[in-house]
Formats: sequence, C-alpha cells, structure tokens
Amino acid sequence: MTKTFTMTAVAEALGGKVIGDGTLTVSRVAHPGAPCGPGDLVLAMDKALLPLLTANGAVSAIVSEGAVLPATLKAAIEVGRSRFAMAKLTRLFEEVVPVAKGIHPLAVVEEGAEIGKDVAIGAFVYIVAGAKIGDGCILHPQVYIGPGASVGPGGLIYSGVRIGARCKVGARCILHFNASIGADGFSFVTPQMGSVETAKATGSVGTSSNIELVRIASLGAVELGDDVEVGANSTIDRGTIISTRIGNGTKIDNQVQIGHNVSVGENCMLCGRVGIAGSAEIGNRVVIGGATGVADHVKIGDDTVIMAMSGVAGNLTPRSLVGGVPAKPRAKMIQDMFNLNRVKGLIEKLAALAARVEALEKQTKD
Amino acid sequence: MTKTFTMTAVAEALGGKVIGDGTLTVSRVAHPGAPCGPGDLVLAMDKALLPLLTANGAVSAIVSEGAVLPATLKAAIEVGRSRFAMAKLTRLFEEVVPVAKGIHPLAVVEEGAEIGKDVAIGAFVYIVAGAKIGDGCILHPQVYIGPGASVGPGGLIYSGVRIGARCKVGARCILHFNASIGADGFSFVTPQMGSVETAKATGSVGTSSNIELVRIASLGAVELGDDVEVGANSTIDRGTIISTRIGNGTKIDNQVQIGHNVSVGENCMLCGRVGIAGSAEIGNRVVIGGATGVADHVKIGDDTVIMAMSGVAGNLTPRSLVGGVPAKPRAKMIQDMFNLNRVKGLIEKLAALAARVEALEKQTKD
Amino acid sequence: MTKTFTMTAVAEALGGKVIGDGTLTVSRVAHPGAPCGPGDLVLAMDKALLPLLTANGAVSAIVSEGAVLPATLKAAIEVGRSRFAMAKLTRLFEEVVPVAKGIHPLAVVEEGAEIGKDVAIGAFVYIVAGAKIGDGCILHPQVYIGPGASVGPGGLIYSGVRIGARCKVGARCILHFNASIGADGFSFVTPQMGSVETAKATGSVGTSSNIELVRIASLGAVELGDDVEVGANSTIDRGTIISTRIGNGTKIDNQVQIGHNVSVGENCMLCGRVGIAGSAEIGNRVVIGGATGVADHVKIGDDTVIMAMSGVAGNLTPRSLVGGVPAKPRAKMIQDMFNLNRVKGLIEKLAALAARVEALEKQTKD
Repeated sequence: MTKTFTMTAVAEALGGKVIGDGTLTVSRVAHPGAPCGPGDLVLAMDKALLPLLTANGAVSAIVSEGAVLPATLKAAIEVGRSRFAMAKLTRLFEEVVPVAKGIHPLAVVEEGAEIGKDVAIGAFVYIVAGAKIGDGCILHPQVYIGPGASVGPGGLIYSGVRIGARCKVGARCILHFNASIGADGFSFVTPQMGSVETAKATGSVGTSSNIELVRIASLGAVELGDDVEVGANSTIDRGTIISTRIGNGTKIDNQVQIGHNVSVGENCMLCGRVGIAGSAEIGNRVVIGGATGVADHVKIGDDTVIMAMSGVAGNLTPRSLVGGVPAKPRAKMIQDMFNLNRVKGLIEKLAALAARVEALEKQTKD
Repeated sequence: MTKTFTMTAVAEALGGKVIGDGTLTVSRVAHPGAPCGPGDLVLAMDKALLPLLTANGAVSAIVSEGAVLPATLKAAIEVGRSRFAMAKLTRLFEEVVPVAKGIHPLAVVEEGAEIGKDVAIGAFVYIVAGAKIGDGCILHPQVYIGPGASVGPGGLIYSGVRIGARCKVGARCILHFNASIGADGFSFVTPQMGSVETAKATGSVGTSSNIELVRIASLGAVELGDDVEVGANSTIDRGTIISTRIGNGTKIDNQVQIGHNVSVGENCMLCGRVGIAGSAEIGNRVVIGGATGVADHVKIGDDTVIMAMSGVAGNLTPRSLVGGVPAKPRAKMIQDMFNLNRVKGLIEKLAALAARVEALEKQTKD
Repeated sequence: MTKTFTMTAVAEALGGKVIGDGTLTVSRVAHPGAPCGPGDLVLAMDKALLPLLTANGAVSAIVSEGAVLPATLKAAIEVGRSRFAMAKLTRLFEEVVPVAKGIHPLAVVEEGAEIGKDVAIGAFVYIVAGAKIGDGCILHPQVYIGPGASVGPGGLIYSGVRIGARCKVGARCILHFNASIGADGFSFVTPQMGSVETAKATGSVGTSSNIELVRIASLGAVELGDDVEVGANSTIDRGTIISTRIGNGTKIDNQVQIGHNVSVGENCMLCGRVGIAGSAEIGNRVVIGGATGVADHVKIGDDTVIMAMSGVAGNLTPRSLVGGVPAKPRAKMIQDMFNLNRVKGLIEKLAALAARVEALEKQTKD
C-alpha cells in the first residue's frame, strides 16, 4: 500500500520548486540521520542537516530556499516555511488505517440508529438507538456511541473512543484511542455549607464537614464543532444544563481533561495533560501549554498564549502571554525568578550595610 | 422518553414552594440565556438572571426565596440553597442511558461467574469466572470484569471500564468511561541501592546507577466502598500485599491516579488530574483540588482542603487548608507571594539606604 | 488456584535463611497488621513490626537479618535487602490472570496477521492484517492491534490496550489497561508565523493570530524495547518521520504522556502523570518523579533523578538531581525556598536599619 509520487508531483503538492530530475519517484519520507534507499525523500530543510546527505545515500531531498545542494542529489525540492511544507508532505504520504466499508458482522448497530453512506464500522463497535453516524465516517473497532449521539460526516473515530448519550461531534473530527466524550460532570453539593465554601468565605475550614455529598446529575451533553481533534485518553465531560462546547478547528492533545459547562472557542490548541475546570470560558485561538490548569469559571481572552505547567486562577484579557502558578504575565514571571535569585545577595548586602551603620554609630558615640 | 412533571411535583421533590399555577407541566430544565418553550423549567436561582425571564419566553422557573417574579411567569418554585436544589432537580430529570436487561448475546460471561437479579449486561462485555455482579447492576458495552472481582448491587459501569482480578466494588458505585480499577502497582527495586535512594540519603545521585529494575508484583487488590464514583480514564492501582482502599461515598473525578496501597477515607472529593502516590493515607471528607499531587506515604487528616495544583510533601493535620508546591497553609502561601512581590522594592530601598549611609560616612570622615 | 510452598522453598527463592521449621507450608503473603491464619507468611522485615507478630496469630514470617524473633513463630526466613526480597516473594506468589490458549471464537484476527505459538487471545480482541503476535503472548479481551504492528514474545497485554499501525512492542512487555500506543502526534502549523512562535521570538503575542491550524500527519510509529512496562491509561504518540522510542527495561507508570519523536533510554522509571513533550531525549536509567513535565526538545543525561512535580525546561547533564518549576539543582531549589522564607525578616531588618540610619542622620545634622 505504499504511495509513490514523482518529485514534480510532490513539489506541486507542497508549493515548492523542483531542482534536478522531476521525474524521479519517491515513496517514503526519511530522516537524514539514517541510511537511505533510492525511493527515500530526505528531509533537510534545516541547513545543518545538509552535510548528512552526502554520506547517507540520499538521492532526493526537501531543502530550504537557497540551500547549497550536495552533488550526490539527483533531485531536490526547495520550500519556504519548512514546518508548513512538512504538514503538506506528511498529509501526502499519510496512509489511512483501513476499516472495511459497511458494518462489521460483529458490530452492533441498534435499530433506530441512522448510518450514513460510505461508512466503515469495525468489529465490536456498539451504536445505541437514536445515534447518527454521518457519511464517510470511519469507526475503528471497539467504539461506543450512546443514544442520540451524532458524529458528523468524515469523522475518524479510533478504537476505544466512547461518545456518551446526546453528544454531538461535528464534521471531519478525529478522536483518538480511548478518548471519552460525555462522561458525567464532577458536581456535588453538601446540604449545608461545605468545607470548600467555608474555606473560600473565611480562609479556614473551621468546623465545616462534608458529611453528605449529593450528586448533581448532568442533563447537558458535549458538542464538538467541525474539524476538532481530541487526543488519546482525553476526557470532555457533559454540562449540567447546557452542553460543554468545543469550537470549530480546536485541537486537543492527549490526556486533556475538560470539565462540565466549559466553553472552548475556535482554533485553540490544548496541549497534553491540560485541565480546564468547570464553567471556564476559553476564547478563540488560545494556546494552552502542557499540564497547565485553568480554574473554574475563569474567562480567557482570544489569542492568549499560556505557557506550560501554569495555573490560571483569574481572567485573562485577549492576547495575554502568561506563565507560572498562579499565572502572571511572562515578563513578571521572569522578574519573579530573578528577584528570588537576588534575595541571597540582598541578605549579604543588608548585613554589610548594617555593619557600616554600626561603625557609624560607634563613631558618632565617640 | 421525556419525563414530565407538574410544578407541584417538582416543588415537592425539591422541598420548595410553588407560586402560581402548580398544575403547569414541565419536561425540560433550561438555562435562561436561551429562548424557552412552554415545557421548559428555567433556572434563575441567581437573582441576576431574573431579568432574562421576561424576554426569553419562560413561563415557569425556579427562583431563590424572596425573588421578585416577572409577570410573564405562570408558575415558579422558590428554593433555599440553590445548588442543593439543583442536585435534586437534575436527579429528577436525569434519564438513565438504557441497557437491555439480561445478558447480551454478544457478551461473554464465563461459567462460574455469579450474576445477580435484574442485571443488564451489554454487548462485548467480558466477565471472567469467579466474578460476582450484584443485583440491579448495569454494565454498558465493552466492560471487562476480572476473575474474582465483584460489583455490588446497583452498580453503574460505563463502557470501557476495566475491573481487574479480585477487586471489589461496593454498592451503588458509578464508574465512568475507561476507568481502570486494579492495574498493577508501579513498584520496582534495584538489587543494590538505587539512584533515588542514594539521592534521598546523600542529596546527590553520586555514582549510583539503576542497572537493573526488578519488578515487585501486586498481590493485593482494590476495594471501593459503597456509593463511590470514579471518573473517566481514572486509574486506581492494586496494592502490593493489602488492597488499595477507597472509602464509602468518596467521589473521584476524571484522570485521577491513585497508586498502590493508598487508603482514601469516606466522603472525600478528588478533583480532576489529582495524583496520589503509593501508600499515602487520606482521611475522611478530604477535598483535593485539581491536578494536586500527594507524595508517597503522606498522611492527610480529616476534613482537610487542599487547593488545586498543590504538591503535598508532608503530613497534614485534620482541617488543614493548604496550597502551593510544596503545600503550606494557605495564609503562608499568600504571604509568600506577597513577600516575593516585595523583593524588588526591598532592592530599591536597600540601595537608597546604602546611599544615605554612604553620605553619612562621607560626612563623618569630614 | 492458590500456590503453596514450604518455608525452605521460599527461602531458596529469596536467597534467605530459614530459622525453625523449614517444612512448614505457606500459601499467602500477609501484612502483620491483620489477624493471620496458619498458611500466612507474614512480612515483618521492618523491625518495628515484629511486636505485632506475637498478637496476630502468625506462625511464619519474613524478617530482616538479626531480628529477635517472638517465641510464637514456628519458622522464619531472614533476608538482606528487604525490598529486593519483596520483589522475589511477590513474584513467587503472583497468580497470572488466565486467558485461554488459542484464539477466542469472538476475537477477530484478520487474514494476514501472524500469530505465534502458545498465544492466548481473548474475546473481542481485534488484530488487523499484517500484525504479528509473538510466541507466548497473552492478549486479554478487548485489545486492538493495528496493521503491521507487532508484539514480541511473552507480551502481556491487558484489556483495552490499543496498539496503532506499525508500532513495535519488544519481548516480555507488559501493557496495562487502556494504554494507548501510537496515537498520532500533536503537531500543527500555521501557514504564517503563529502566536507561540511570535511569543517566543518577541516576548509578546503581538498581533499574531492562529487563524488556521494545519495538521502535520504522523508517518512514524512507536517502538518499545524489551521488558518495557506501560501503565494504565498512559499514552505514547507516534513520531512524525522516525519513531518515538522507549528503550529496553524502561518502566512507565499510569497516565504518563509521551509525545511524538521522544526518545527514552533504557531502564528509566517514569512515575505517574509524567508528561514528556515532543522530541525530548531522555537518557538511560533516568528517574522522573510523578507529574513532572519535560519540555520539547530537552535532552536529559543518564542517571538523572528528577523530583516529583517538576518542570524541566532545559537540558540536564548526566547524574543531575533536580526539582522545581523550572527545574534546578535540588540544593538550589531548597535554597530558594529558604531565601523566600527570609524575605519577611529582611523587610523587618531593613526597616530597623533605616530607623537607625535616620537616627544617625538626625544626630549628624545636629
């Protein structure tokens, strides 16, 4: 199932320029650090990698504009923004993992589920009545789709994904292994004021005790927009009354946790292990670095960038750049580190100054 | 499958008071921010939301005691503690996701497994010999129950949950998508003193090298009490000799990791992404904020509240309120932030004072 | 299915010395804190636990060298390094969860998959064409093995594990519940310079907006060496061009996230909730404490120990011992805490000194 392209075809897909023999064919993308065969298209957009090409047997490569090419190359493609070229190149060579069209005889599609055209449903998939699977969807083995849930056209749902009752997944979404869409929100209440409420109100737990935890059920669902990607083992909980929402084009990495009632805007990037607590509102095009936490009910403005391992405890205006726990403007965070490093010197300077003052005092007494 | 109630019936369930037409029927709970139809019961316990009711078509609402009602309402229910009312209300309208009673023909229940009365076991469920499923349990599709494991009566086990050998789940527990109960503990030993031991003993890795990692097998299991809830993709590891234990009524959010030999008391709340390292002992009614880590062997007293994103490295007395990494009393944590913010000023003040001292020195020399 | 051994046999397996009746048989390992029956072998390597043996009915125990034994014991085994003895002991008594040899009639093995000898494949397992399962592997129910993926001999794959296309798992690996091997890397690019790039280059988001996120597909795979263990719900993403690699003997705890292109060396230990961002290179025998994050492209030297809840933002030389966010040498981290604690005193001292200077200034004016 290998794909083969001429260098000219690759260049066209990438919007790049062929140098040398455009009829040369390639069938694999390769790293310059390993020995190469004739069909290998070697990535050397980083100029520092060019010298490797003379020794590894490469005959075709992708390079940055203006690169000085080794004589051993028969053909090269010059590209501009290398990471963008990489995106196009990897899409060109990507091989979709096959699932046979139709419904596998060992899948269960309950009566009353609507299945679109050209759908592939793998073995051990379970689809409950009332669910809708859009045209061209691929459901890998062992997926669960709850009652009334829907997956838009072109959806790619990997093995072990669970989509709970009434959750809506937009068009062309990709959900990776074991992602959980629509578990219940984590929401409990004590009949009287509980320990967290007391602590927030008074700064102390006092005599408060959570003797009884009463469950608030989740009547809402989860709604993912179009072109959303959700990473492996990530979890997005359903809302209490309204739905938890993820906007079009937002990409979510592995092991991200999104709480009930959260709203995430469009084209956001949430890196691995991020956690968003209940009812937070994330704007559009927000980038959240790995392992960062966002507190409940916090509002984050559009185009904000949050550094990895931060803890966002308060609202952020659009285009913020923040880091740290609690998150503060990046410049302030760096200043804080710098200031902490200066404490030792301060102690020493203060002691030296105190000695000078003491000397002066002695002199003055004399 | 919609549920319909009269306002009087809802009020009774909530312990609230009907104002207006108690015979009015409602079949959906709605948020005041969206347009409403006739069967919608609108939540407006927050007084700030009351003005929305005049414009969104609402005819019935739940409000706080003493709220001034818009004339457009035909009926309202006055409640006290609004979040507590919410719990009762959502339970009233909750619709349980159906699984057909009996054992699905595509489920496998090994001979020697005991299945209680009124049990619903979905397709692709696998139950190993020696396992016991209590009366009234619902096992959604694709669940795994290991040998000798048991689920108490009324258990609700969502798709993709794995319950390992000999683990015991109490009555009325809810386990969400892809939760893992009873994977092996993470426990290894080097034949000679390893790098972590050396670092703890000497403050340096020295020449220590973990040339061999020998596995300590997990002979214990996991025991969940009654009314425990475990979130999606959370993991609770089995103990080495004795079992890892979770007390009655404790609620665990998504992506929480609980290590081997840990003991968690009753009615605790562990928020999303919390991690509890091996052999830690958590008391009763402890609340642990999101993404917080608790170090191994640490003991945490009853009724303690730990703020989100903290790292608890030492024991905590009952009713502690702590935050930060390492966790310290909340007041101290705030003081630390405050103090760090004062360093810059200190530097400036010290420089100014030094200038004054220098001036004095010059004067004194004269 | 209980295992029974004589004390002499246990001592041989542990390399320990029998004291008393070596013919006594034991069939269970027990904790001294609970009442014991006749077949219970009680762990009391910690001398503080010895007094418990007189009261709990124990007749056989494992103790440390030189322990003074209670008269109630009929037999004991003296061992050296107790945790190492524990490893051997638990392996002796471990009972492997059974899966019937052969392919379960409700498993699907596509034509063109290669299945070794003495393999046990549970129900609802799906193995795609081109996959290879080595001799003696145990695949528990509900596992997915993608096309061209391979599991080396002696593999133990628990329920819910997903191994994506072309991923290679070495010999004797153990993969726990719901682990994900080979989901796509989280890799996107904006056609023009995006907000994170702008922030890195200029320290501000500026006017940058991630209007379009273009997906970089993952052509690489994941390669796990021999004797690797991966915890429940952990995720290891495939590489972009080359494979993400985990070295021989490395142990990975639950809910660990390893990004695309990462390379982890041999005999490392990655504790629960660790996250390694893309293209990071972890050396051999590195220990990473729970919940720690490692930034992308960072290189960590051999035998390094990283404390729990740290954030490693820069390269580390071999045998480093670091902690904190950002991670710094442990001694420096402790010094930082100490220095922060001294700020309050500094403020007071500075004020006192200022008063003395003011007094001097007054005197000097006089």
